[in-house]
Amino acid sequence: IALPPPTSPPIAVLEPDKKTPDGWLPRDPRLIRLTGVHPFNVEAPLSDLYNEGFLTSPELFYVRNHGAVPQVKDEEIPDWEFTVEGMVEHPLRLTFRELLEQYDQKTYPITLVCAGNRRKEQNVVRKTKGFSWGAAGVSTALFTGVVLGDLLKKAKPKRGARYVCMEGADKLPNGYYGTSVKLNWALDPNRGMMLAHRMNGEMLRPDHGKPLRAVIPGQIGGRSVKWLKRLIITAEPSDNWYHIYDNRVLPTMVSPEESANDPKWWMDERYAIYDLSTNSAIAYPAHEEQLCVVDAPSNYRVKGYAYGGGGRRVTRVEVSLDKGKTWRLAKIDYAEDRYREAGPRQLCGGELDMELRENSFCWCFWNLDIAVSELSEVGDIFVRAMDESMNLQPRDMYWSVLGMMNNPWYRITIAKEGDYLRFEHPTQPALMPGGWMERVKKVGGDLTNGYWGEEIGSDDKSEV
Amino acid sequence: IALPPPTSPPIAVLEPDKKTPDGWLPRDPRLIRLTGVHPFNVEAPLSDLYNEGFLTSPELFYVRNHGAVPQVKDEEIPDWEFTVEGMVEHPLRLTFRELLEQYDQKTYPITLVCAGNRRKEQNVVRKTKGFSWGAAGVSTALFTGVVLGDLLKKAKPKRGARYVCMEGADKLPNGYYGTSVKLNWALDPNRGMMLAHRMNGEMLRPDHGKPLRAVIPGQIGGRSVKWLKRLIITAEPSDNWYHIYDNRVLPTMVSPEESANDPKWWMDERYAIYDLSTNSAIAYPAHEEQLCVVDAPSNYRVKGYAYGGGGRRVTRVEVSLDKGKTWRLAKIDYAEDRYREAGPRQLCGGELDMELRENSFCWCFWNLDIAVSELSEVGDIFVRAMDESMNLQPRDMYWSVLGMMNNPWYRITIAKEGDYLRFEHPTQPALMPGGWMERVKKVGGDLTNGYWGEEIGSDDKSEV
Repeated sequence: IALPPPTSPPIAVLEPDKKTPDGWLPRDPRLIRLTGVHPFNVEAPLSDLYNEGFLTSPELFYVRNHGAVPQVKDEEIPDWEFTVEGMVEHPLRLTFRELLEQYDQKTYPITLVCAGNRRKEQNVVRKTKGFSWGAAGVSTALFTGVVLGDLLKKAKPKRGARYVCMEGADKLPNGYYGTSVKLNWALDPNRGMMLAHRMNGEMLRPDHGKPLRAVIPGQIGGRSVKWLKRLIITAEPSDNWYHIYDNRVLPTMVSPEESANDPKWWMDERYAIYDLSTNSAIAYPAHEEQLCVVDAPSNYRVKGYAYGGGGRRVTRVEVSLDKGKTWRLAKIDYAEDRYREAGPRQLCGGELDMELRENSFCWCFWNLDIAVSELSEVGDIFVRAMDESMNLQPRDMYWSVLGMMNNPWYRITIAKEGDYLRFEHPTQPALMPGGWMERVKKVGGDLTNGYWGEEIGSDDKSEV
Repeated sequence: IALPPPTSPPIAVLEPDKKTPDGWLPRDPRLIRLTGVHPFNVEAPLSDLYNEGFLTSPELFYVRNHGAVPQVKDEEIPDWEFTVEGMVEHPLRLTFRELLEQYDQKTYPITLVCAGNRRKEQNVVRKTKGFSWGAAGVSTALFTGVVLGDLLKKAKPKRGARYVCMEGADKLPNGYYGTSVKLNWALDPNRGMMLAHRMNGEMLRPDHGKPLRAVIPGQIGGRSVKWLKRLIITAEPSDNWYHIYDNRVLPTMVSPEESANDPKWWMDERYAIYDLSTNSAIAYPAHEEQLCVVDAPSNYRVKGYAYGGGGRRVTRVEVSLDKGKTWRLAKIDYAEDRYREAGPRQLCGGELDMELRENSFCWCFWNLDIAVSELSEVGDIFVRAMDESMNLQPRDMYWSVLGMMNNPWYRITIAKEGDYLRFEHPTQPALMPGGWMERVKKVGGDLTNGYWGEEIGSDDKSEV
């Protein structure tokens, strides 16, 4: 089984952080900041993320913070308190120490993904209300902690209870960050929901929820509340501001103006997102990678990642060199399966036991060898994934006000420049310029024409 | 809550059936036969199906038989035996009578869908190995029976057991019909799997599995084994011929020849299909319906059905009049919710109690009013549904060897003929001619050009 990659915990507070409320917190300088200096929202460069392998070291693991990081000193951790309250027979008030002493500890590999992963592409098409994630808003770690259902069973939800609301210690302009998931899911051991205190075998780092966080596998990162203080069992979904006004995919025809004028769009729980959508991206060729075709090896290995939602496994990854007319099948490696097959054992301070769980909660890696001579002849490479429920990444973007769950076919373009092939990804994260989308837009291409902004059918006039 | 529609059980054996092994079995003459005379594979005319409402009467409920219907006399039913065997601590051999006496009886509304629903569209594009379902391979009934998990818990599966194989009494050229589902799912009460003996309050009719069948909600109909005789708990998926060579979606690039030459494609359990895919169809306007635009009401109500897979709810249904450039939101009615909200009660000889189950296992109906003046201006109407996990029907068909799970946007075309608008569906079931797909193909259109065989971008030359 894959062990965590070597980690070098950052020791220096970075210059930009010094004047922020996070001025006490060392961070990795490789991370790309997506919302200016503060709050801290970052992803690793895609190549660095991919090169880490199946597990991501905590210092490169993506971060989505809404405000200042709650500062918890090591000596305060054992007394960190949290509650299980609301519609339960036996409300609980527990300390971190009690959680470790009184409950079974489990360890599972879990991939977390921000609902905004790949949002920059949406922003290039039409500005959304969200900031510009590239394709590295996804990371994987071994999380250790307590199965959420174990706590809930002890508290005994009452009949009529349907939701588990969660609240963190991060106080924000609109209150503490909070959201909810369905109680029914939380009680289902197959869904793997947990309260975690370790990541890759070490104590959670501050940006990842030290000392305690929820980890909700297969669902968008926004449900995995960090710095966890309260679990509230309710009959209705969370009424927390962040539950209502974030992490939703409104219907595509709802404009930013319409959504601002009519709160009914936000109040409709049908548009709240939980399960991740099927997604994939190409890591290599990297953006602006150049391949010399003279004396090149005969094949180039195209590779990247893919993931499904709700524990559903990616069953195929397909690559097209002709704009989706034909596809070829990539090889898939599910490192997660090796933990499943390892059988029960201790790992990182918890029990690993995944044999009976059919769900897949991690990303997989895929690759496909393509002849360099073929790459020289085509204009682009597409990838798409399908999960076990036949959920296939769509050809076209489903644009929405918050720009979340963006998952159309991932496309990189190929330009011939002398003896070199130059590859371009769709975008670069944050305000970084680059990518074929901006380029096409700049010359007047309509990115929504269903043909990536190129002249429709330009490569195949004989079609009709 | 919706009660079953009036039923008129057929009393006459139809002429075509008389020379078949089913010559003893009265059937409804409205049903459209998809595989010649025998075996009996049928769907209702789409309008008739839709007009029945939320629940379908047993005589119009679609049928997928692989061979002759096992004939079971009423007086034999109490002694009908079935087993729970294989990797269990306590193998069971039960009679129908014992099943009724010793286990709790439940009643749930459940929609069954054949994995081949809408396959005719695939066959028009390129012949598959399957016969031509239209869009009425879907039906809903109140099923009454025993929760599968209750039986399994009594039998106590052993560690290492992962599948529940099922076998029917229908002996076929390749053995008894059989397949499997995951044990983990079967033990999950939220997945609603049951052994049913009633349908809309009456004994199952012979074509629907009399006296006992599995009902596997949210999954393709092929998993709901009829005339059930054996449940076998195993470590591996079913090795039944019909499990291996049916109900799979092979990757799209695998041709019929390739699949025939290389068995590895069939042996790869990743390509077995379980959850239904998100789907929808337009019932009205019906195929060949004509609408007089002179003195017409100002609006026409377009309507149809939609369903999700794996218990996932359809959260939006969208309609486009401009080939997907813009979409409008249809109204959705989930009749299933009224059973959920009704609270615990007796219904059809079983307990109805859906309050705690979050899953949606039934189709929903949708509608949208469109100005007749608008319909007169456009060439087509599209509909697509999205489920709660953001699984959106794809624009383009995912063709595969068996032609299953076909779910691209459902399109009907509009032709102006004098004072009339004439509507065409994509296809008609079985060998019935008609539909815009055949028409387009006949004049040389390439249905796979990503533009429904029309000249690419023909309606919008200003696009580039």
